[in-house]
Amino acid sequence: MSLVTLTTDFGHSDYACGILHGVIWSIAPETKIVDLTHDVPRHHTLAGALVLDRALPYFPAGTIHVVVVDPGVGTSRRPLAVKLGNQFFVGPDNGLVSIAASRMETMEYPVEYFHLNRPQFWLKEVSPVFHGRDIFAPVAAHLARGVAPEQMGTRIFDPVQLALPEPQKTREGFLAHIIHVDHFGNLSTNLPGEMLGEMAGVIILAGKARIDGISKTFGDRHPGELVALIDSAGFLSIGVVNGSAQQTLGLGVGDQITVIFSKN
Amino acid sequence: MSLVTLTTDFGHSDYACGILHGVIWSIAPETKIVDLTHDVPRHHTLAGALVLDRALPYFPAGTIHVVVVDPGVGTSRRPLAVKLGNQFFVGPDNGLVSIAASRMETMEYPVEYFHLNRPQFWLKEVSPVFHGRDIFAPVAAHLARGVAPEQMGTRIFDPVQLALPEPQKTREGFLAHIIHVDHFGNLSTNLPGEMLGEMAGVIILAGKARIDGISKTFGDRHPGELVALIDSAGFLSIGVVNGSAQQTLGLGVGDQITVIFSKN
Amino acid sequence: MSLVTLTTDFGHSDYACGILHGVIWSIAPETKIVDLTHDVPRHHTLAGALVLDRALPYFPAGTIHVVVVDPGVGTSRRPLAVKLGNQFFVGPDNGLVSIAASRMETMEYPVEYFHLNRPQFWLKEVSPVFHGRDIFAPVAAHLARGVAPEQMGTRIFDPVQLALPEPQKTREGFLAHIIHVDHFGNLSTNLPGEMLGEMAGVIILAGKARIDGISKTFGDRHPGELVALIDSAGFLSIGVVNGSAQQTLGLGVGDQITVIFSKN
Repeated sequence: MSLVTLTTDFGHSDYACGILHGVIWSIAPETKIVDLTHDVPRHHTLAGALVLDRALPYFPAGTIHVVVVDPGVGTSRRPLAVKLGNQFFVGPDNGLVSIAASRMETMEYPVEYFHLNRPQFWLKEVSPVFHGRDIFAPVAAHLARGVAPEQMGTRIFDPVQLALPEPQKTREGFLAHIIHVDHFGNLSTNLPGEMLGEMAGVIILAGKARIDGISKTFGDRHPGELVALIDSAGFLSIGVVNGSAQQTLGLGVGDQITVIFSKN
Repeated sequence: MSLVTLTTDFGHSDYACGILHGVIWSIAPETKIVDLTHDVPRHHTLAGALVLDRALPYFPAGTIHVVVVDPGVGTSRRPLAVKLGNQFFVGPDNGLVSIAASRMETMEYPVEYFHLNRPQFWLKEVSPVFHGRDIFAPVAAHLARGVAPEQMGTRIFDPVQLALPEPQKTREGFLAHIIHVDHFGNLSTNLPGEMLGEMAGVIILAGKARIDGISKTFGDRHPGELVALIDSAGFLSIGVVNGSAQQTLGLGVGDQITVIFSKN
Repeated sequence: MSLVTLTTDFGHSDYACGILHGVIWSIAPETKIVDLTHDVPRHHTLAGALVLDRALPYFPAGTIHVVVVDPGVGTSRRPLAVKLGNQFFVGPDNGLVSIAASRMETMEYPVEYFHLNRPQFWLKEVSPVFHGRDIFAPVAAHLARGVAPEQMGTRIFDPVQLALPEPQKTREGFLAHIIHVDHFGNLSTNLPGEMLGEMAGVIILAGKARIDGISKTFGDRHPGELVALIDSAGFLSIGVVNGSAQQTLGLGVGDQITVIFSKN
């Protein structure tokens, strides 16, 4: 029995994401499928890449992650299957896999890319506007049944790369970037918590606000107050207790925040 | 093991769609269930009928499709189970199954209608406002366990029919109708792609815009441009590259577009 | 094989709810999981408690209900597992389980509370801001594998209680309170249908509107009309046929409506 996850920008108002289940079950009836999210911001490949990277560590060996955020569908961009350690990615070659792949390589897990170019593993008719249904879902199902990626494509070594911005070291601390805003309006940055040192001495400047010290959790401050903390992925994040930092500060993905070590 | 799909207008904010899973699993624990969509526009039976028709070809033999868009719940409208070739429909007799059924009959698959009138296959208490939970989910579960529709109802021959508008032939080409707007704002029409002939010579008039030629995919034009193409269901569709044709053109379901064959 | 349901206020735009599936499947691969709803109004524990109470009767013995609406995550509030008759609750000790538990106790089903205090059943690293992933999902998975709640925590007898408002008896009838607004804008109250007696003689005063008599279902009145009926959970509810009582009346959760028995 295999697991397949689905991450797309299809939304829920159409039958598009449901059809992927049908295609997979038609080929691999024993597969378990989870809709990871279908609300990736439209065509936002970097956001899709982040979902995959964050979800991967929580899925068991053998899981197959189908990620389809695909503005280039039907053009010359390649369809890919990728070995990510003991899990798999299936989706377009537009960088969706690159953040997870970089992290896997840093941890010395094997990462191998295959250009899916054997149509016998796809649906018979392939629409140039819906490769999720006609190429990626069938390939995921064949992986779930035990077909090796080597059988479905040719190994390549030049996949498209995306990269998150890196936090910048400054004289007083760091410039960090907001890379994700969650459902509650919390602003997650690219600054790993372990770079923050002694947390009581940290000052955060975000928009027009200043936050003193890093809290452990939301309940450490009063409702309505700004709070800086380490989010569940291990990065510096800014929230408002029972509120939305996104709304309070008017900040979003791409904006910078300043971190100052006052005790240096 | 059987598959059940769920398509409703219940939305996701309630527990209504989740309860259907509980009812089905209580009766048929081995069933796999997929939420096809719960965002059919409220009470829009024709939209629900279209989802079923489009999804059906991508599900395996034996799949049971529960479709509940049911403004007449609790009135004299009949509950139905329908054999659709080797798949099944369960839901109200208000035309939800009729578009898929017409297509199946055109392809000479057997279609048989059963009026569900044996309460021993329902939950013990039936709310007049939630037949999805109390009649349709239990009947789907019994189908999944192998109970024949003949055992759960009486065959009927006069189901309610709905019909999509037909494209109209004109002297210069066609008048087509928008029948679906997807999550991206693409406008899908009722004109099958095979009726378009030589695609380079086609001119589309939609609202105040004119589009020359049919493209293969979105990436064939520049971001922001209007594009006409054949959608993943095989019908003429109008989109905006990386944008929304619905917003750009101000058109929606029911509106007409004009197709002209300039090379005739 | 066990069933796990997930009810949260995480929304669908993040990967948070999808990750719970991964954690559960990593520990208990044979588990079936259903997303009951992830759209509980943010931090609204009473709304989450109501979802659990309403869903419970429709799930089979052994089902494990994970409910995470958790403004106190990472503070001293206790994590719980609760035996609810032959089903289970897993979530924070903030009253989420209390409405279902009260009803179970009224029906003389056993209810036992366990303070989850054995970290060997959690993920190795526990984020103070995501106990859903790091404590509740793993504990649910261990329950699914047959580990008893007694093994994972210490029995307690002082769980946090929440309570829905009670309808108030008046000289002429009842004051009822709106406790839930569904996807269609129907206003459900806390007044059980069996308290309404002879339904033809009932007058409802809601906002500025008056409704005479209780209908069986929506189709008993004309589109656009207000209708009072017994909802699918057995409580007095007010709707607008093919419309929204919430919008028409401008009422919501917490507002009162007046019930008068005109034939008394």
